[in-house]
Amino acid sequence: MSKTKIYLDNAATTPLDPRVLQAMMPYLKESYGNASSIYSLGQEAKEAMEKSRETIANFIGAKKEEIIFTSGGTEADNLAIKGVAFANGKFGKHIITTAIEHHAVLEPCHWLEKRGFKISYLPVNKDGLVDLREVEKAITDETILISVMQANNEIGTIQPITEIGKIVKDIKAKRKERKIEAPIYFHTDAVQTFGHLPINVNELGVDLLSASAHKLYGPKGVGLLYLRRGVKIDPLLHGGGHEFGFRSSTENVAGIAGFAKAVELAKKEINREYKRLIELRDRLIKKILAEIKDVQLNGHPYLRLPNNINISIEGAEGEAMVLALNDAGIAASTGSACSSKSLKPSHVLIAIGLSSEKAHTSLRFTSGRFTTEKDIAYLLNVLPRVVEKLRAISPFSKK
Amino acid sequence: MSKTKIYLDNAATTPLDPRVLQAMMPYLKESYGNASSIYSLGQEAKEAMEKSRETIANFIGAKKEEIIFTSGGTEADNLAIKGVAFANGKFGKHIITTAIEHHAVLEPCHWLEKRGFKISYLPVNKDGLVDLREVEKAITDETILISVMQANNEIGTIQPITEIGKIVKDIKAKRKERKIEAPIYFHTDAVQTFGHLPINVNELGVDLLSASAHKLYGPKGVGLLYLRRGVKIDPLLHGGGHEFGFRSSTENVAGIAGFAKAVELAKKEINREYKRLIELRDRLIKKILAEIKDVQLNGHPYLRLPNNINISIEGAEGEAMVLALNDAGIAASTGSACSSKSLKPSHVLIAIGLSSEKAHTSLRFTSGRFTTEKDIAYLLNVLPRVVEKLRAISPFSKK
Repeated sequence: MSKTKIYLDNAATTPLDPRVLQAMMPYLKESYGNASSIYSLGQEAKEAMEKSRETIANFIGAKKEEIIFTSGGTEADNLAIKGVAFANGKFGKHIITTAIEHHAVLEPCHWLEKRGFKISYLPVNKDGLVDLREVEKAITDETILISVMQANNEIGTIQPITEIGKIVKDIKAKRKERKIEAPIYFHTDAVQTFGHLPINVNELGVDLLSASAHKLYGPKGVGLLYLRRGVKIDPLLHGGGHEFGFRSSTENVAGIAGFAKAVELAKKEINREYKRLIELRDRLIKKILAEIKDVQLNGHPYLRLPNNINISIEGAEGEAMVLALNDAGIAASTGSACSSKSLKPSHVLIAIGLSSEKAHTSLRFTSGRFTTEKDIAYLLNVLPRVVEKLRAISPFSKK
Repeated sequence: MSKTKIYLDNAATTPLDPRVLQAMMPYLKESYGNASSIYSLGQEAKEAMEKSRETIANFIGAKKEEIIFTSGGTEADNLAIKGVAFANGKFGKHIITTAIEHHAVLEPCHWLEKRGFKISYLPVNKDGLVDLREVEKAITDETILISVMQANNEIGTIQPITEIGKIVKDIKAKRKERKIEAPIYFHTDAVQTFGHLPINVNELGVDLLSASAHKLYGPKGVGLLYLRRGVKIDPLLHGGGHEFGFRSSTENVAGIAGFAKAVELAKKEINREYKRLIELRDRLIKKILAEIKDVQLNGHPYLRLPNNINISIEGAEGEAMVLALNDAGIAASTGSACSSKSLKPSHVLIAIGLSSEKAHTSLRFTSGRFTTEKDIAYLLNVLPRVVEKLRAISPFSKK
């Protein structure tokens, strides 16, 4: 049994919902066919997959054939960015993104920079918000892609995606008028929001959208790219022509069925959970700020993910806090799990104006479906003592 | 319940071994941590993953850090080919492969051709074997990669990988003498052989090797690229820096643990299974040839996968046979499942010299761990009647 009793790192990954696992089991047992095979066992797998595709498409107002299953959020982000770049680079080599995107967006951008692309990394304000005027200003006739995450994984700030979508729509119309052939596409990384906030791709005005099953109580190893019909991308994985030719590979049928079940559950519970988590979040923030001094909340005060708390605690080192909380059976994070191996301060916290020192005192709690009031009460009991102890010994301390 | 009772398409995918599922369950239940997280739940996931990596590395004589987990064989092939091309294109833009590779190798090659690479597709003889002299002749100072599959998925022919490995080693030595900086790497697609034939990467002399868990009774959605230390590739999936920086994405811990269990079982059973399947195969071939006239075996008579039978049955259309066998509860294939959606004749059968018409009369049976003598007896009972019936109505018939 794990030492971890209270899991407050749902932004890193979520537990698989037992109902999701149950939905996966037939495809891990008797229905093991290859979805490309024409005999019954194969066709059963294919039907399960197509039914899953439909469930998920409906959930975000998309068409079935606009859902491309991938191995996760990172692949979806890479497919969006490199896929658009390779297919449309002849029209223009400029991509706009933000300084606080996930590494799965920033790193393919860095890679493309070495191959002749120009990337604009838009700054954000102290709350982590992108400025719409900055987006507008950055667009040139060379711009083929704008990629802005729906909500940030570290600080939880929710971006004005609908508004950016309108800007992109305007640019599309103007290019048409001006008879400019070059397309401009809008991608959002919705890994942190999918299943947690209501999403409609048409209302958002996005052409591409990435999601990952394991962030909404689904399995690891499966994600998706929403790809609006007509949007041109090159595949990353070439081969047998699966997923409408956009992503070859024998389909992970169990994973896909699990993803669809996770979506079905999210759809049913989204409104109730949204309210419950916001209440938990705001109460927790208030109590932490009341009970521990010299604490600041990072990210936007209310345009933030319902489950996200990110704080800087003066005089206490983030990783030391995570380890001390772990000793008390609590799982929390210093930032995104993906960069927890690195000693570099979070690029997100730096982008919102924190000093490197302050960034190193940051702590993230992300609650979820299985988080209870009791969990939060326990955390509130443990955290002040952890902070006090670390402040006493920390080089970050003011003393 | 599926209509499929007798599964003879193990080359397309294999049933998940119940022992593998059991090994996956902890990571689908309580041990759901993100392997990048530093608290206990994350570290447990990491330990499971690293133990899995070690089991698999040992199985093929590799070092732990030479195993890059992917989402499957297609991703591994694409990572090998596009990864080598992007990282080493400055040294040379020539790649050598064969006409009978899987689409997961051929398609990335086609894609690279449009981007300035030159690809040599080596022919094969009537048994499906590559000629070593053709390999040697094709190599130029521009060649950076040779990719030859260990065994073909359709006709089962096993290639002389060790001998090609020696040729590549010689070229490497000569380039060193001649102070040519350009590397030349050797990749093999071992998706059909991994877990079925003994593999040692050093004896084979390969620098890169692809495998997929679901071909050896492991889960769909996980594979690996063996990447010899020092071999330079660019990642396909950029992001958080997972898999030694070669493949970012939150790790599919359950899938990886399942892959390792599948390897552990294969290792234990490989010799016994190898003999058993060859006996089944050869007996079945002999009986089919004896009981149905105008049948020819495609692929090499003995340098072939223990479980593979590929035959052309004059006057009987392949897809019609697959559907008729399906009615009798038998799962078989016309070629590779990945291309069963296409009406084009198999590129493999064309490459070994079959006419398009003859290629369309082909049928593949691939047995596996759960295939019994009784299954084979049932097939032998059904197949002649299916053929007789189809021959009576087929446009391919000589009548």
